[in-house]
Amino acid sequence: MPQKIVIIGANASGIEAASAARKKDRTAEITLITKEKTVGYSRCGLPFVISGTIPQFKELIVYPSAYFQMLKLNLRTQTIAIVINIKEKTVTIQTPEGSNENITYDKLVIATGADPFIPLIKGREKHGILNLRSIEDGEKIDAIIKAGAKSAIIMGAGLIGLELGVALIERGLQVTVVERLPQILPQLLDADMAELVQCHLEQKGMKILLNRTVEEIRGVDNVSAIRTGEENFTADMFINAFGVRANTKLAVDSGIPLGETGAIKINARMETEVKDVYAVGDCAETVHAITHMPICPQLGTVAVRQGKIAGANVGGDCTQFTGVLVSAVTRLFGIEAGATGINETVAAKNCFNVVIGVVNSKTKADYYPSAKPIRVKLVVEKNSERIVGAQVVGGEEVTQRINALSFAIQKQMTARELAKADTAYAPPMCETWETMVLAAERVLMKLR
Amino acid sequence: MPQKIVIIGANASGIEAASAARKKDRTAEITLITKEKTVGYSRCGLPFVISGTIPQFKELIVYPSAYFQMLKLNLRTQTIAIVINIKEKTVTIQTPEGSNENITYDKLVIATGADPFIPLIKGREKHGILNLRSIEDGEKIDAIIKAGAKSAIIMGAGLIGLELGVALIERGLQVTVVERLPQILPQLLDADMAELVQCHLEQKGMKILLNRTVEEIRGVDNVSAIRTGEENFTADMFINAFGVRANTKLAVDSGIPLGETGAIKINARMETEVKDVYAVGDCAETVHAITHMPICPQLGTVAVRQGKIAGANVGGDCTQFTGVLVSAVTRLFGIEAGATGINETVAAKNCFNVVIGVVNSKTKADYYPSAKPIRVKLVVEKNSERIVGAQVVGGEEVTQRINALSFAIQKQMTARELAKADTAYAPPMCETWETMVLAAERVLMKLR
Repeated sequence: MPQKIVIIGANASGIEAASAARKKDRTAEITLITKEKTVGYSRCGLPFVISGTIPQFKELIVYPSAYFQMLKLNLRTQTIAIVINIKEKTVTIQTPEGSNENITYDKLVIATGADPFIPLIKGREKHGILNLRSIEDGEKIDAIIKAGAKSAIIMGAGLIGLELGVALIERGLQVTVVERLPQILPQLLDADMAELVQCHLEQKGMKILLNRTVEEIRGVDNVSAIRTGEENFTADMFINAFGVRANTKLAVDSGIPLGETGAIKINARMETEVKDVYAVGDCAETVHAITHMPICPQLGTVAVRQGKIAGANVGGDCTQFTGVLVSAVTRLFGIEAGATGINETVAAKNCFNVVIGVVNSKTKADYYPSAKPIRVKLVVEKNSERIVGAQVVGGEEVTQRINALSFAIQKQMTARELAKADTAYAPPMCETWETMVLAAERVLMKLR
Repeated sequence: MPQKIVIIGANASGIEAASAARKKDRTAEITLITKEKTVGYSRCGLPFVISGTIPQFKELIVYPSAYFQMLKLNLRTQTIAIVINIKEKTVTIQTPEGSNENITYDKLVIATGADPFIPLIKGREKHGILNLRSIEDGEKIDAIIKAGAKSAIIMGAGLIGLELGVALIERGLQVTVVERLPQILPQLLDADMAELVQCHLEQKGMKILLNRTVEEIRGVDNVSAIRTGEENFTADMFINAFGVRANTKLAVDSGIPLGETGAIKINARMETEVKDVYAVGDCAETVHAITHMPICPQLGTVAVRQGKIAGANVGGDCTQFTGVLVSAVTRLFGIEAGATGINETVAAKNCFNVVIGVVNSKTKADYYPSAKPIRVKLVVEKNSERIVGAQVVGGEEVTQRINALSFAIQKQMTARELAKADTAYAPPMCETWETMVLAAERVLMKLR
């Protein structure tokens, strides 16, 4: 008899799990359950539709319905998973028509994702606070801009907050970003690297307020202002970009344990502590490959990698996830910023004794027109001389440098080895001495 | 007493050696001898001045005379090294005024570079065949274009030939490239990857004749046509892009042994077989890090890396060169092509049993406007599953992928490890699944 695989959630990690399961098990009955109407789209693409770079939200749909048909995946949209019965191995679902139904599983994958959250701020129940998590969210923001909004306040200077901020400026709005911490992109960059990005954003007209906690969301029913300290800020739009939290209610209610990050606890095979139940993506935690601490990075790349592992395993394989380096990158106007491994802040928190190498250079030969600035920062563990982290901020060619340094970290490359690396050169694309190599030399000078 | 360091040659490797020596030895007398008038310029930049992208040849000068003063380097231009007396440890030079002089050395670095050569072709002594190796060569080509040249024949479809071909087309010339082998860029790419580049060049108007040996250079005194088979080709310019050969005459005359590649034989410390004599750059051979065979890659990056090692060693250090992966990259109109490690052809020649993974993808999210095609080809050793080579051809972001794969090869990453790598993603810069990772998976499917 074919095995029954049920996947709750049908975005990045859920669909990847379904696809990987199908590759391993040609006969399994694979069912995807999602409360969403639209599935298989790229959340990361939402800011670029709002900016107008991508003409329509529907273009973000990476997996059309034909994909599900081709792989014989039973996709049930607008369907809510209410309860998982881990003893009976059933999921109770509510159909679009409102009736309940029990479906049985041999293997279950929880891919319920994460939702935007607002910290415990006075007035956070007020209506009209906008998110950017789904196509519906994006359509709402777009409609408000079209209705004539002229200004926006974004609460939080993380990736989503800033990418959306850029999009809104490109649409002609005045944008103010309010961040509790003393720097932007606190998850991604150290303060010295973040400053470069901030400077660029401010030049492009973004107003950035650091060290400012949103203390109150004001208004009658609808938000009309926020207060931080003594100051009130009004705007036509208020965006919640504080961050997202793993959707764990279904797991908790069903007796599936969470980890210390508050996300669903899983092992390297993506198994929860309950037999035959797996969890992947933004709702699940993972292990940081450098600190070996549990982490919930909530990145699309991690979601698809986890989905693939879980899918292969429920399909009959036995494969392991090797942990994350939290490699991430963004482009904000004309500047790109990325990181992999640990930064100085995380190193200090985890008692890593590190040596830092920072080098400023250009993205093309110095004499080549349109060469742009680039800065590479390496974080190297002092005793082992191993590279444990890297950040790159520059005008172009940042992403693949992050990937290169991710490979280096994965393979435990030392600063000494990187200083002798064999790199490619051509005047229109890089300098003779690669910036990453120069940064390694800077580290070596401090190690001697 | 300060030691006397003499360096013959003052371009990439020679200046790098002088700079590295100065870092290690603050008191040494460091003398650079060069027959050239202009020193310290980027040869790799020459095509981009001819194309007009860079306004003037003098902008290619990376090391101005102030640099030599700052580092207290005694630079002697238009000075010819005639004889090295390895017993007396002297170099006989001919000064710009024509008189001879003996200078003594404690340590000698030979950085005499390489010169363009023409194979044994009937008529190769004819005047008017142009090279592109020096600023003077570049100025000559530029003058002929300004005088009204409308067409050019380029003999050889290597990096220099094609980069110059692109520049000439950009200046409005009709360009025909004649190549003896059945593909372009034979040193860099396998035929399947080279085809992509060729197709792009032909779309841009370059005429490329493969499998065509230049059998005769015709003309009275000056070249007026070339003959290949039964066909004669005339043009306003004839460019020698057959390749370059190490300048070894001085070494040979002085009793310094060559290696099997015909370049000066050196060890990992850059020492020739003669005590206290080092050789670096295009005149010296090195070891391929994968095949362990001697090779003379004649790349700027290798030249500077060797120069730095030799300089550090003559300055008192003891550091080793780790061999080359021959990482190289070029941009030709809108296409970038690069390689690192060994390709399929080299693998076959060296009896490597390899598995190939090729993936076509895009340089941005599929839905993101202006996403360009990219192809990654991995060469993986079958038994060890180690990546031993890679080629990338695409519209952008090729260079740092080559660097990433160079790091992977250096650290003996297996295809299995690459398939699980942690990569960065953002829609404007890449796809969710990195093309390099997908190519590794393609390899794994064949290994199973």
